[in-house]
Amino acid sequence: MSDTPDNAVRTYIAEHRAAFLDDLAEWLRIPSVSAQPEHDKDVRRSAEWLAAKLTETGFPTAEVWEVPPAAPGEAQGAPAVFAEWSSTDPDAPTVLVYGHHDVQPAAREDGWDTDPFEPVVRDGRMYGRGAADDKGQVFFHTLGVRAHLAATGRTSPAVNLKLLVEGEEESGSPHFRALVEQRRSRLAADVVIVSDTGMWSETTPTVCTGMRGLADCEIALYGPDQDIHSGSFGGAVPNPATVAARIVAALHDEHERVAVPGFYEGVREPTATERELLAELPFDESEWLRTAKSYGTLGEAGHTTLERIWTRPTAEVNGIGGGYQGPGGKTIIPASARLKLSFRLVAGQDPDRVEEAVRTWVASRVPAGIRHEIAFGAATRPCLTPLDHPALRSLARSMSRAFDGQKIRFTREGGSGPAADIQDVLGAPVLFLGVSVPSDGWHAPNEKVELALLLKGVETAAYLWGDLAGALQ
Amino acid sequence: MSDTPDNAVRTYIAEHRAAFLDDLAEWLRIPSVSAQPEHDKDVRRSAEWLAAKLTETGFPTAEVWEVPPAAPGEAQGAPAVFAEWSSTDPDAPTVLVYGHHDVQPAAREDGWDTDPFEPVVRDGRMYGRGAADDKGQVFFHTLGVRAHLAATGRTSPAVNLKLLVEGEEESGSPHFRALVEQRRSRLAADVVIVSDTGMWSETTPTVCTGMRGLADCEIALYGPDQDIHSGSFGGAVPNPATVAARIVAALHDEHERVAVPGFYEGVREPTATERELLAELPFDESEWLRTAKSYGTLGEAGHTTLERIWTRPTAEVNGIGGGYQGPGGKTIIPASARLKLSFRLVAGQDPDRVEEAVRTWVASRVPAGIRHEIAFGAATRPCLTPLDHPALRSLARSMSRAFDGQKIRFTREGGSGPAADIQDVLGAPVLFLGVSVPSDGWHAPNEKVELALLLKGVETAAYLWGDLAGALQ
Repeated sequence: MSDTPDNAVRTYIAEHRAAFLDDLAEWLRIPSVSAQPEHDKDVRRSAEWLAAKLTETGFPTAEVWEVPPAAPGEAQGAPAVFAEWSSTDPDAPTVLVYGHHDVQPAAREDGWDTDPFEPVVRDGRMYGRGAADDKGQVFFHTLGVRAHLAATGRTSPAVNLKLLVEGEEESGSPHFRALVEQRRSRLAADVVIVSDTGMWSETTPTVCTGMRGLADCEIALYGPDQDIHSGSFGGAVPNPATVAARIVAALHDEHERVAVPGFYEGVREPTATERELLAELPFDESEWLRTAKSYGTLGEAGHTTLERIWTRPTAEVNGIGGGYQGPGGKTIIPASARLKLSFRLVAGQDPDRVEEAVRTWVASRVPAGIRHEIAFGAATRPCLTPLDHPALRSLARSMSRAFDGQKIRFTREGGSGPAADIQDVLGAPVLFLGVSVPSDGWHAPNEKVELALLLKGVETAAYLWGDLAGALQ
Repeated sequence: MSDTPDNAVRTYIAEHRAAFLDDLAEWLRIPSVSAQPEHDKDVRRSAEWLAAKLTETGFPTAEVWEVPPAAPGEAQGAPAVFAEWSSTDPDAPTVLVYGHHDVQPAAREDGWDTDPFEPVVRDGRMYGRGAADDKGQVFFHTLGVRAHLAATGRTSPAVNLKLLVEGEEESGSPHFRALVEQRRSRLAADVVIVSDTGMWSETTPTVCTGMRGLADCEIALYGPDQDIHSGSFGGAVPNPATVAARIVAALHDEHERVAVPGFYEGVREPTATERELLAELPFDESEWLRTAKSYGTLGEAGHTTLERIWTRPTAEVNGIGGGYQGPGGKTIIPASARLKLSFRLVAGQDPDRVEEAVRTWVASRVPAGIRHEIAFGAATRPCLTPLDHPALRSLARSMSRAFDGQKIRFTREGGSGPAADIQDVLGAPVLFLGVSVPSDGWHAPNEKVELALLLKGVETAAYLWGDLAGALQ
């Protein structure tokens, strides 16, 4: 099945570890926050940095792709990076690796112990925004393919290797589907490997087999033309902050089920096999709570915690704001309030229908005297890997080699990525290769990556291309 | 009844109008925002400015009063100003005028057309934070007493005139009751005149006969130790922003009645006479809505708008905040959320019992896994003037003279002030003399005062001291 000697791979990785980490740290210093317009230049700088690094790695093609506006007159998207290294083997299958080079917003005052954009290595971990999500997990492919070549003595990979690294994943990939459609022929692949997920834990290596989708919206509620005195007018006119709160409170029923009519339409229940695979995992709720940095569980009645985060759709408020939030008090009825809501979707749900259901429901909950606006971001579809695909077995095998022969189990991911769009457009199955762990703190202060695991990612990639070439031929 | 010739008063006011307005503008330039610690020095400067101006006006006594901490180790309160001008008439009654020299927070970006602390006169109005609430209405007493003396040829007022101008009214007067208790003998009075309310409108002069009380609190809700990924954990742990929203949503029942158990305990229903006085007012709901800059009415079922704002207790959210409020999206479950709630109280309600009821109710609504903190500001009691008091008739008579013989009607005020504390401690009835109108924009951007009305306030004060001296002897 494999033509890659493990020792040669490990030796190569050990020799190049230091330079690899230095390069990653350099990339993490670029604050490529796609959600904040003031970082537009940094997102571009990040793309250019990566393209140059991929050329240096040996990719004959490494390009920064401009992302056209979604509609005439709208802004251009953040640049993506595409790289290609074709195999000299005439029958080599084609693999497209997906990741993203943009990161979540981060500021020291959010609770970071160190500057989020000045990475530090401490206790075998690299701390910095993007260390795990997703720069670290994109970057392990650079050393991975070099190790594959060095250990096999090849001058080109065993597969036709393509990389697509987008710059808007943390903003909901608003232009991604259009980009994939536009570049369909250059992106064509037999298998897609998504490098933007994690494993169960440091000691239980796993392959993710699905991600939830995402629909998100921002709702603005307007009441009085300006803040007004709550003594003079309080109790007699609608308060937009109250309306905002009532919308959030009405999102769930008393069983913590999402109460938006039509929301659960089409939801696909997990199969018996999928439930068995979930049950194989060593789930410890109190340990999970520590990872969640939370002090209690709460969710849809009739479902376990793992089912809630992987197989059930949800609604969350990500941000709410209205009125006076400074020190002391201010006795006003605020002029406006804002909500940011997001909905995680599972296989069977259609983001367009969810958007329509939410729009109708919100409109029905806004009283006379309050005006509202609602804007949805680009949706991300849910995604499931076929459990019987040979590429999935190949991936589990390569990962098991990297993890000293350990059995690889199967998980899902509660988070979302544009994998389903690639699957849709290219007609290729999607697999997930990720080595991040829940404690890495994605989207949170003090995001980090475990260096030992990052190097297991390198090693898995080094074995995978040879194994896949055999498995798919 | 009166010994003050109207023409002499009006001539005196006309001659001193320009200097009076210049002085007021100078005072408005001092940003005495008591709720914002960075303005502590400005609040002190405002007190010192006023004391100097009262000395210049002729008050033999004008002092800045330090306000002792509420408890050992706590911060000192913002300084108040006390002034006294005794009558040479041996039987003169004693009147204490109350007002405040602190103002609401204001920033240009809140929607002000001009700098809130750089007053401008435009179209017969002076715009600036505090123009109406309350510096303008404190300041009309300086020219008022001078006009009283000039028109009557007296060298001392017909009443023993005392002024108490506090510096923390916009912060809920946390030290005011203690201050009045401590200085009880110097503040002793037969009647208290509160100069911190308004009239029905420019064309319907009125005397206010009551104010609502106020209890307010800030609630902090803590969930995860830090913001966590809404994909990885969403749907399985409690979200503090959701809990905050659920508290706000549960504040009212489906009839918009406050749903906190025990909240309505002791509420005194208005008498038939009080209802008749309300019905005499030329209330036009669509005009009122324009003043409220609002687009609909909403309030407790079974009550008119005027009843809702003057005679009914209410609950409002003044501020809510949690999670990501910046541009774009951030798919998190926030670590915390905050609420600022305020409750307007009416005669019969006890602020301490309301606080206890709210504390118990909030605690009952916080689920396992969320920690909460709740802190109340100092409460303000509700206040009602006895409708049959001779001083009230004297005040209405003086005001009618200033307003060219118009009938003076009676209103209430939805807002709150520490008047009830003075009434409690000094055992003196409280009357309200205010000439502000609803469009003045208290607590709002572009606060202003109508100069013509401000001068009617001066004129009323000029007549009042002579009339009161007669009425109360």
